[in-house]
Amino acid sequence: MAFAIDTKEPVGVATSDPLQLPIITKFKIALCQLIVTPNKKENIENAHRLIEIAVEQGARLVVLPEMWNCPYSTDYFAKHAEDFDDEDALWTFSMLSEVALLHKITIIGGSMPEWSNGHLYNTCCIFGPDGRLKAKHRKIHLFDIDIPGEISFKESDTFKAGDEPTIVDTDLGRIGIGICHDIRFPELAMLYREKGVHLICYPGAFNMSTGELLWELEQRARAVDNQLFVATCSPARDSCGSYTIWGHSTLVGPSGEIIATSGHQEAVVVGEVDYSKIKLQRKSLPLNKQMRRDIYKFVNKHEQNGLEG
Amino acid sequence: MAFAIDTKEPVGVATSDPLQLPIITKFKIALCQLIVTPNKKENIENAHRLIEIAVEQGARLVVLPEMWNCPYSTDYFAKHAEDFDDEDALWTFSMLSEVALLHKITIIGGSMPEWSNGHLYNTCCIFGPDGRLKAKHRKIHLFDIDIPGEISFKESDTFKAGDEPTIVDTDLGRIGIGICHDIRFPELAMLYREKGVHLICYPGAFNMSTGELLWELEQRARAVDNQLFVATCSPARDSCGSYTIWGHSTLVGPSGEIIATSGHQEAVVVGEVDYSKIKLQRKSLPLNKQMRRDIYKFVNKHEQNGLEG
Repeated sequence: MAFAIDTKEPVGVATSDPLQLPIITKFKIALCQLIVTPNKKENIENAHRLIEIAVEQGARLVVLPEMWNCPYSTDYFAKHAEDFDDEDALWTFSMLSEVALLHKITIIGGSMPEWSNGHLYNTCCIFGPDGRLKAKHRKIHLFDIDIPGEISFKESDTFKAGDEPTIVDTDLGRIGIGICHDIRFPELAMLYREKGVHLICYPGAFNMSTGELLWELEQRARAVDNQLFVATCSPARDSCGSYTIWGHSTLVGPSGEIIATSGHQEAVVVGEVDYSKIKLQRKSLPLNKQMRRDIYKFVNKHEQNGLEG
Repeated sequence: MAFAIDTKEPVGVATSDPLQLPIITKFKIALCQLIVTPNKKENIENAHRLIEIAVEQGARLVVLPEMWNCPYSTDYFAKHAEDFDDEDALWTFSMLSEVALLHKITIIGGSMPEWSNGHLYNTCCIFGPDGRLKAKHRKIHLFDIDIPGEISFKESDTFKAGDEPTIVDTDLGRIGIGICHDIRFPELAMLYREKGVHLICYPGAFNMSTGELLWELEQRARAVDNQLFVATCSPARDSCGSYTIWGHSTLVGPSGEIIATSGHQEAVVVGEVDYSKIKLQRKSLPLNKQMRRDIYKFVNKHEQNGLEG
């Protein structure tokens, strides 16, 4: 197994000009909307297959869905989890690392159940083109919902929430990570914008009721309100699990336009990210300058508390 | 002329339980999507006519569009403006006051150009069922945009921006006001949510390019992210002015659902507001509790500075 755990890179861009464009400003992104089965090995092989298709189509950045190595169900989370300190159990982790290295691509590894110090986390691993783990994001906002007769789910019964926003500097720009319910909180996206993020990736698994109503709405709102790119990646609908999944993995541009999307079946969605659109959009309509910081103010508590690099 | 200027009512609801429902929790709201002409008198008569239609349909709360007594054009703003200290010139103001008193309704008076101390403001007047001015909102975020070949407009060349968010306590709940471009800033809606607002009314006049892309998106996002009602009211498309107007006045509920909407022609859109939906939605999915104030924090600077009552 070829992988190495890297520490999270420090965030060093000055806040006065947060939008420093990376060297590569235009590239293809692929969203692998894959079917999830109860068989972990099968899921890993299938994800591998879809990543290969993405690479063939020219993708330099590949995004996987939330909980793709494991059905979204309390019966499976612990069983399919990996402890990143236990090298012998890292099936999912090492496949992602090896494929990233092989093709020199960046992978936003969707999410998987992570075991750590007796707790389960819903965790996204990000691998660089050198196969190293660049960062991991543990879902910050756990999904607890109770609509009688429609849906009842309490993610916090099983998982512990992460405590940190995740910003990754890559050769494809500064990327912010959220997992599914994290998208429902505009504050996280605002925090990422403040830190100069170009693209927010949200692996997610919206259900049918919230999916139809909110999936597209939320990602377009985050993109247009913060004038940056947003990519979402969901499992396909016919995945097994505790509820039926909406699908519709999508790439949205900084004026809220849908660049690429899919239906609900297994698919590799490929779209072009072009960061010059961010500059153009912010020049045409400088929301950041028009903001009334004398009336309201957004505070990055995380940074204020000195927890960030 | 029967009107009286009231001071803005103090905001006294405790932040620990901001959602204290008003006595009337279910009522009809009407959005008067009217045609605007260069003739101010004609516009006032037409607005009066549409308000009467709204009342006939049972509306207790009536919302008018942005700049409805005046074409949206720099040639007309000063000419059609009213100085609220000059009683002889208050055609628009007094019609709204009189109709509110006559029918015992609350009117969110869209917006009109206001003269004050040598400055022009884009101002919304809110009248109670006693015909008194309950509050006025001066547009906080002026619309300055420059997309070459598509649209170029600089509202700040003509208008001075307001400096205060506006919250009005009425017998129909606590209402927050924004005008058009104010909707583009999620922070203002978040501030209103924090202060226990049930309904945000945005008189607006989106143009064709931003209208199609963003009008529905922004209002649904504000509603669903803050779990409250949002009402928008636009002039009809065939109004004259410096650009073509999108129309589509809409009422959105706290789960992002469209309750009532219109096309682009003159119309009175009537929909039911039911605040119990807010309680239900917040109980099913308590976003406010799930928020991670240890990671990010939203600050009402206006209140912090001691400017609010």
